[in-house]
Parts: sequence; structure tokens; C-alpha cells
Amino acid sequence: MTVAVSIQNTPLEHPSEPILLRQDKAGVTTLTLNRPQQFNALSEGMLAALQEALDAIAGDGTVRCVVLAANGKAFCAGHDLRQMHANRQLDYYQALFAQCSRVMQAIQALPVPVIARVHGIATAAGCQLVASCDLAIASHAARFAVSGINVGLFCSTPAVALSRNVSTKRAFDMLVTGGFIDAETAADWGLINQAVVESELDSAIAAKTADILAKSPTAVRYGKQMFYRQRQMALNEAYAFAGEVMARNMMEEDAREGVEAFLQKRPARWGA
Amino acid sequence: MTVAVSIQNTPLEHPSEPILLRQDKAGVTTLTLNRPQQFNALSEGMLAALQEALDAIAGDGTVRCVVLAANGKAFCAGHDLRQMHANRQLDYYQALFAQCSRVMQAIQALPVPVIARVHGIATAAGCQLVASCDLAIASHAARFAVSGINVGLFCSTPAVALSRNVSTKRAFDMLVTGGFIDAETAADWGLINQAVVESELDSAIAAKTADILAKSPTAVRYGKQMFYRQRQMALNEAYAFAGEVMARNMMEEDAREGVEAFLQKRPARWGA
Amino acid sequence: MTVAVSIQNTPLEHPSEPILLRQDKAGVTTLTLNRPQQFNALSEGMLAALQEALDAIAGDGTVRCVVLAANGKAFCAGHDLRQMHANRQLDYYQALFAQCSRVMQAIQALPVPVIARVHGIATAAGCQLVASCDLAIASHAARFAVSGINVGLFCSTPAVALSRNVSTKRAFDMLVTGGFIDAETAADWGLINQAVVESELDSAIAAKTADILAKSPTAVRYGKQMFYRQRQMALNEAYAFAGEVMARNMMEEDAREGVEAFLQKRPARWGA
Repeated sequence: MTVAVSIQNTPLEHPSEPILLRQDKAGVTTLTLNRPQQFNALSEGMLAALQEALDAIAGDGTVRCVVLAANGKAFCAGHDLRQMHANRQLDYYQALFAQCSRVMQAIQALPVPVIARVHGIATAAGCQLVASCDLAIASHAARFAVSGINVGLFCSTPAVALSRNVSTKRAFDMLVTGGFIDAETAADWGLINQAVVESELDSAIAAKTADILAKSPTAVRYGKQMFYRQRQMALNEAYAFAGEVMARNMMEEDAREGVEAFLQKRPARWGA
Repeated sequence: MTVAVSIQNTPLEHPSEPILLRQDKAGVTTLTLNRPQQFNALSEGMLAALQEALDAIAGDGTVRCVVLAANGKAFCAGHDLRQMHANRQLDYYQALFAQCSRVMQAIQALPVPVIARVHGIATAAGCQLVASCDLAIASHAARFAVSGINVGLFCSTPAVALSRNVSTKRAFDMLVTGGFIDAETAADWGLINQAVVESELDSAIAAKTADILAKSPTAVRYGKQMFYRQRQMALNEAYAFAGEVMARNMMEEDAREGVEAFLQKRPARWGA
Repeated sequence: MTVAVSIQNTPLEHPSEPILLRQDKAGVTTLTLNRPQQFNALSEGMLAALQEALDAIAGDGTVRCVVLAANGKAFCAGHDLRQMHANRQLDYYQALFAQCSRVMQAIQALPVPVIARVHGIATAAGCQLVASCDLAIASHAARFAVSGINVGLFCSTPAVALSRNVSTKRAFDMLVTGGFIDAETAADWGLINQAVVESELDSAIAAKTADILAKSPTAVRYGKQMFYRQRQMALNEAYAFAGEVMARNMMEEDAREGVEAFLQKRPARWGA
């Protein structure tokens, strides 16, 4: 299994079916990569569709949690190599990787948690997609690699996300060998949160989204926006920033209600 | 079990007993959180007592090692929610989280190692306290959570310490779900150094303090002050800084004695 | 076993044998520390020999991969304590640690991967050497410690490398106790990539170098130079930098060939 396997099938998308599906259900928005024949390769079109969907979700107060899933055998095989090969120009590649990097950062910038639901292989930018989500649950059928090195292209932008999830030597090993790790290893190394048997993938995702939906939406928004920013600061700056965020969070009605409910030993009722 | 459980008992401290106990024994200072009925919640009073104790230790050359322990069933249940609820003002919360952040940073700034002795639950700022210590040993009865999210308050300042101990997705998962991890998981994830059966907690702590007391106090002080500072620097700056610290450490009498003792195959005798 | 064991034998090097051996074989350069009687202590001479060898490799386009190995019972016992003891001057130590830090950083600056082959103990700066390599494979006979604290000298420069491989509390524990961890623990903590039985150490190294030699040399060079630099940047800067590197990598002939070979389902032929 290699970095992009779209060539084994037609690279053309079926005109009548969108390449990215969105389903909204009781606060959980599921985005499903839908280029199964191309192993959900991140073509320009797919990246644009993802960016558009993420932008829409960012402004949609009804969304409480996002699940990123995929149709077909693979989760995501990374960039679309056929498309890249057809456009051998520096400025094309600069624009492409910038577009991809914007999508990855938009996942972190989203005010709600994003959970990767990984049911098959996730390679190169597909592995980066998993690393870029806040949480990830995979079935035992999933495997992970940053395999660009196999086609002469070191996975540099995937390395950015991978090396912020996995320790230095493990990340370097994956990048320089292109080798696969299985779901259990990915969980052991911190690339994903949980590896489950295939039949339990959906219930594990449902349990996690239910967990998140039970929380105050306001508090989750405060937290996610704070989490990644403070991580890049020196300790004293991080504390100053996080303390200010937490004080403002405490002034919100949900925190007042949550603490009061706790003190009164009753369930809390969160605002929108 | 939730973020602060002080409400199940009287929030008033027994006037005749200090809320923080200090015991000094042969170079080991044990600080014991002593609000067992309130699950050792970090009230303003407790934070002030901790700050005062840490400041005193910082200037006390007889202290070689600090153990942070707690009385009662819990280790520490985080902030005192009843007290917070009674003071719903932004500037109060800003001051409270700043006070708490100062305590956490004072642990790292202390010139001697601080070991958390965790015998029960450590939640929210209680979990942060464990994360902020240099070392932590817990019994199998201990459990860890950053559970503010359950009362509508994302554990933002605890996230600062937690995310510097535990990998990104694991930290985010704990923060957004408020879920508990057990002591073995905490050891596996690096939040603590060791999980032991309850009957062996004291001997494990004693072994670790004995290990530290056998070292040169001077060398330990050089090292602790260097360790956290270099971690926030770029690699070349970190090397320049650490090299300078190590050269000065080498010029100390203890290093001369230690190396000479080694070359002469005899035990070293450390200075004060 | 302690920080440097050179005193158990003559500190003088055998004049007729170089203290660092270099062997080149089909793209793999093996550097072998060759002061077995001194447990390969990093004397000034050894550090100078390492620096010279690394500088030569940096400019040698025929080298595709470096293996760092050692002769004798130990891998490397750190600095040469007898030599240090004979030169008790601040400027001497400043120069020595600067020299050592340059060697460690030269390993990362090298355009090709460096694999530590650890067959015995690696202590203090010897442990730092392992941490500084891109990859490390150890036999079950290997053990790791940052043991300067045992002679009154906190391993400050080793801490720089160690704390960038191993999580905070584990690194601090090793540094303050000087205690050993075995190869399995080192693999579990991310200090090394793999722990194998002694009889399989050479085949594990051979498999890893073969893996690397099968890749495009150009792509590996792009990747290694990018990897450590991006790690020290904020996320958006890291993406901007990595995207630019990847775009330029994609414009290389090897990437064109690699992608084309993939699309044509044939093996790729890499340039020099």
C-alpha cells in the first residue's frame, strides 16, 4: 500500500456525487470523504471542499462536534499524485501545500472538537489529517504511514502535524522509512486516542460525541481555542493567557449554572 | 467524583488545625494538604499557605527535597467551588487563577526536587499540582482527571501543566471529557513516574527521597534550575545555556570531590 | 557502573590505533568509537575526531546513512573524567562542553540519517549521543543513564538532548537519580526506536540502513534538514516553511521520477 492509490481506479469523480458529504444530526456534524475509488485522495477539489465545509462549520452555532470519516476501503491516501504529476510547477506546488496546510490548521482553529474516525489506511497527508484532528479513534483495520518518501517526496507538511503528536525518533523513523504502524501502535504512541475492533468503531465514536455533547458548549469553545495557543508559549506566558481565559469562562452563565448545579447536587442545564 | 467535592462536608476549616502541615526530617520536607473534609480543595487560604511554605523552603538551605502529600481520602479536588461561587467577579477570578499559577510555577522555581505523593483522586487544579511537581509517585488508589468541564469551566490553567507532561491528543481528551485515568495509565502516559500498590507508596517515596539525598545538593540545584529553562529554548540556545551551567557546576567543590572520589574509588563526601 | 570508567584502565590511547574508525560500504558509513579500554569516553581527542568525521561526511555525497557504533564492552561512558579532573579551569570546561555540544548538533545538522547502534551501556554524554542521533537501535544488553549526578555534576548538556526525546518527568527522574533504564524501557519511552536481542542487533541495523538506502537521497536530505527546524517553530511558521521545502522537493527530478514510476507501476530509479 503506497502513498496514493488513486491510479488503480479512475481519477475522475462521479459528477453526480459530491466528493465530501455533510450530515448533521443532533449537534454532531459528520464530514465524509467521498472519493472511495481514489482512496479519498486530497485533490485540489477535495481540499477546497474541506476548507469550505470547515469554514461553514466555524460559523454555525448548532454544530457541537465534528466527526471526520471516509467512504470506501481507505481512510485517506494523501495528496492526489496524478493531479500533482500533471502540474509540475513550483508555484502550483507552493499553492497546493499552502492550501493543504490551511485545511489542517482550520481543523485546529475550529471552535468545536474534531474527531477522526479512521477505519482504513491513512497515509501521507491522510495521516496528517488524523494528526491534525483533536481526537482520533481507529479500528484495528487502520494503518498509518507518512509514505511520500517512497515516491521521492519527503512528507514535510505531514511531519509538522506528526511531530506534534508523536515523539521525535518515532516520527523521524516513520518519515524516513515510509513504514506502516498499526492502530495499536498508533494508540501507544499517542497519534490516536483509541484503537478498537472494527465492529465497535461506531459505538466508540458515538460514546465520544455523547461525552462532548454533555458538556457546556461555551466551556468547550473556550478550551479548544486556548489549548493549542498556550502550548506554543513559554510557561509564564501560557499561565497568564490561560488564567485570563479561565476567568472569563468562569464569568459565563454556563459556569455559574454548572457550579451552582454541582453545589445543589442537581444536573446542570447548559445554554446554547 | 467531580471537580470539587467540598460541598459534601462543611467548607469551614477547623480553626485549631492548620490547613497545610509542614514536617522536616533529615533534609526531607513534607507538606501535607490538610483539609480532608473538603478533599483538600485549593481555597484562597490553601493557595496562600502553599505559597508561603514554598517561599520559606526556597530560602531554607537545610531542605534537600520536598514531598507534597495530603490527608484524607482525596489527594486534591482542585479549586474550592463554593468559595468561587460566592465571588462572581472577573477581577476575583483573575486574581485567583494568577495566585494558583504562581504556586504551580513556584514548585518548578524551587531549587530542590518536589515529589507528589498521590494516594487518592487528583482532579482539576489537583491534577495540575501533580503535573507541576518534578516527580510523582501514586498508589493504585489514585485517579486523575481535569474535570472542570463537568461544571462548565474548561480546565485552562491545569491544561498548561498537563499538556507539558502528556501528549497532545491524550491531554485534549482528558480536558474535553473530564474523564478519569487510573494510576497505571498516568504512569504509562508520563503524568506520573510510578504507580505502586497502596502498601508500598511510602516505601517508594522513601526510596526516591533517599536517592536524591545521596546526591550533591549543589549539583541538584544547578540541575533543576537549568532543566526547565533550557526546555523552552531553541536547541542551540539550550546548549549554550546548559554548557555554561555545567561548566560552573564543574568548578564547584562538590564536583571536584565527586570526580576525585570516583577516580580514587571511594565514596564522595558532599558539602552543604 | 558509573559515569566514566576509564580509570579502570590506562587513560592513554594506543598510539598505533585510531580512536575513531570509519568504514564506508555501499553508501553506509560506520563510525566506531574505539577506546574500548576507556569505555569510549568522550575525551577532547574523541570529540575532535567525531567532529572531523562528521564534517567530512557532511561534504561527502557518497554517504547515504551513518551508523554510530562502538568497540568493547560499553557503547560510551560519557566525558573523560580523568582528563576533566586534570584541567580544573572554568574556561577549559566552557570550551569542552561547547565542543561536545557542537558534535551533538553536527549529528542533527548532517544531511543524512544517523543511527546509533547501542550494544552496551550509554551513560551521561554517551546517553546524549544516543539521544542526538536520528534513530537508535539497541540490544537488550544496553542500558542508559545520565549519571553525572553521581559525581556531583548534573548532566546539563545531556539533559538538552534527553528532554527532547523523553517526557518531562521521566527525563528529570533519570537526571536527578542517575539511575539506569534498560533497553526495553528506553524503547517504551522513545529514547530509542527498537530494542532487540543481542544476536539480532546487526541484522536490525542492516534492515534499517537498507530501508534508507532504498529511498531517494535527495528526498531524505530535504526531509532531515526540514524536520528539526520546523519542530522549533510555531505551527503556522512550521507549515509555511515545510510547505516551501516540500514544493522544492517536488520539483526535483527524483520526485518526478518517483511519482511517474508509481503511476506507471514500476520501480523508481533515483539520481545520485
